[in-house]
Amino acid sequence: MATKINNLCVIGTGLIGGSLCLSLRKADACQHIMGAGRSEETLIKAKQLGIIDEYSTDISEAVKDADVIFVSVPLGAMKAVFEKIAQGLQKHNNNKAIITDAGSSKQQVQQIADEIFGSEAVRFVAGHPIAGTENSGPQAAFAELYDARRVILTPTEDTDKDAVKLVTDMWLATGAVVETMAADHHDKVLAATSHLPHLIAYGLVHCLENLEDIEEVFRYAAGGFRDISRIASSDPVMWRDICLNNQQPILDMMRRYRDELDMIYNALESGDGDKLIEVFEHAKKTRDKFVH
Amino acid sequence: MATKINNLCVIGTGLIGGSLCLSLRKADACQHIMGAGRSEETLIKAKQLGIIDEYSTDISEAVKDADVIFVSVPLGAMKAVFEKIAQGLQKHNNNKAIITDAGSSKQQVQQIADEIFGSEAVRFVAGHPIAGTENSGPQAAFAELYDARRVILTPTEDTDKDAVKLVTDMWLATGAVVETMAADHHDKVLAATSHLPHLIAYGLVHCLENLEDIEEVFRYAAGGFRDISRIASSDPVMWRDICLNNQQPILDMMRRYRDELDMIYNALESGDGDKLIEVFEHAKKTRDKFVH
Repeated sequence: MATKINNLCVIGTGLIGGSLCLSLRKADACQHIMGAGRSEETLIKAKQLGIIDEYSTDISEAVKDADVIFVSVPLGAMKAVFEKIAQGLQKHNNNKAIITDAGSSKQQVQQIADEIFGSEAVRFVAGHPIAGTENSGPQAAFAELYDARRVILTPTEDTDKDAVKLVTDMWLATGAVVETMAADHHDKVLAATSHLPHLIAYGLVHCLENLEDIEEVFRYAAGGFRDISRIASSDPVMWRDICLNNQQPILDMMRRYRDELDMIYNALESGDGDKLIEVFEHAKKTRDKFVH
Repeated sequence: MATKINNLCVIGTGLIGGSLCLSLRKADACQHIMGAGRSEETLIKAKQLGIIDEYSTDISEAVKDADVIFVSVPLGAMKAVFEKIAQGLQKHNNNKAIITDAGSSKQQVQQIADEIFGSEAVRFVAGHPIAGTENSGPQAAFAELYDARRVILTPTEDTDKDAVKLVTDMWLATGAVVETMAADHHDKVLAATSHLPHLIAYGLVHCLENLEDIEEVFRYAAGGFRDISRIASSDPVMWRDICLNNQQPILDMMRRYRDELDMIYNALESGDGDKLIEVFEHAKKTRDKFVH
């Protein structure tokens, strides 16, 4: 990786932003990292952990000298953050900065970027690293998070090619595999593989917690339950925002899933063992084939 | 563990039965193990792996000298196996053998045992080790499977106390924690913590496999999807049998779960972020509290 970013500004220094910083530092792919965000406590912790070099709670100041601005805040905070970035870039005559993000849905983020950055939106490259753990905060960050993981970029026809190249190189430096696709396609695929599964897991745990003998129920929960429910420990604010930002594709998938469960329910109710085994065998074959 | 079983007969030498054998051998808690089952290929493999000392494909012969008979076959095969055991015990005048099983639902198994063993059913101790992996067969067996895992026994009022004690001691020798409860309570708890989660996982993978861009969907499946779908790689025959044998408690849980998903769907459709975050926060708190 020949590319080296002189001034990286990371807004939101939690698991996603923090891990990018640690990874780029390890690869010697950036010089100086300015952290920004709402919570000074988080920024202090990020600095203590060596994630950032300095910080500011004023985003419009933090972007002053930035070559690349990486926005890793919950989707619900994206618009307000973009507004402060735009103000800061204008105020400091910074017209070089390339802006990218890590939001889990891409159509709405692109729409907000177009609206707020206007003609400058050509230097905005929408992105989504398919990586994470159920933990959050700078203390959860680690340099290897993106190693061999996929990062999806969803540039538009108008997006500056050099900006796409630089963001691609930045992610390659973390060890990630970078791919590009259309934003609406991204949102549909992620609704299926990530957003629906999270709702399924949250729903399962929430459904069980209303059982009268909840303590006992969890006492007998084996490894299967631990795995299927793991993502129900994910950050609620982040997932509320993802749901609201990718509403239609998620609703589409939820309807499909409801039909599927109804079909299984009916098969079980009518004692149709052949139907059950057909569903289970198909599912097992598919999972064994695709998930390693 | 002072108890040592002289002659153990294990019917079904796959993951569950095979791991019991390996574990009891390691604890020096049994002398001789006779394996039995339908598939000679499986029995040969089990013998090669040191799981059993000898084998027979004729169950009624295999139980001849048994002190303890452990039945670990799919629930759907339980009745036919019990019939052969009863024939064998009668034929060989074996009226000492204690019989126990590993079925994932207990009311139906007890009913079948009462029906087939008649007055001899007092020496049948219904049991269920809460352990397993998504793998099956003797090659998947390992001595540590039951270490610190729970085993639930569901004796009736009529069950012989010494028989319960001996089966309890056998499981304690594997490192498991043994508890007893009523069969109907067991079935309700397991429907919630194990059976519903399996149907949810099978349903998710089966639902996705009908998407046109299935290959791509799975390419972008991250760790969350891998975890939530893991149990969809479980044995289809075993799970068909569990479903059919614990039909009503599972249907009850599925209706609860459908109501839960409908509630989440409606919250998302109406853009009710507060409701979503309430559900997610409750679920996260519950999981973080109970699952370690």
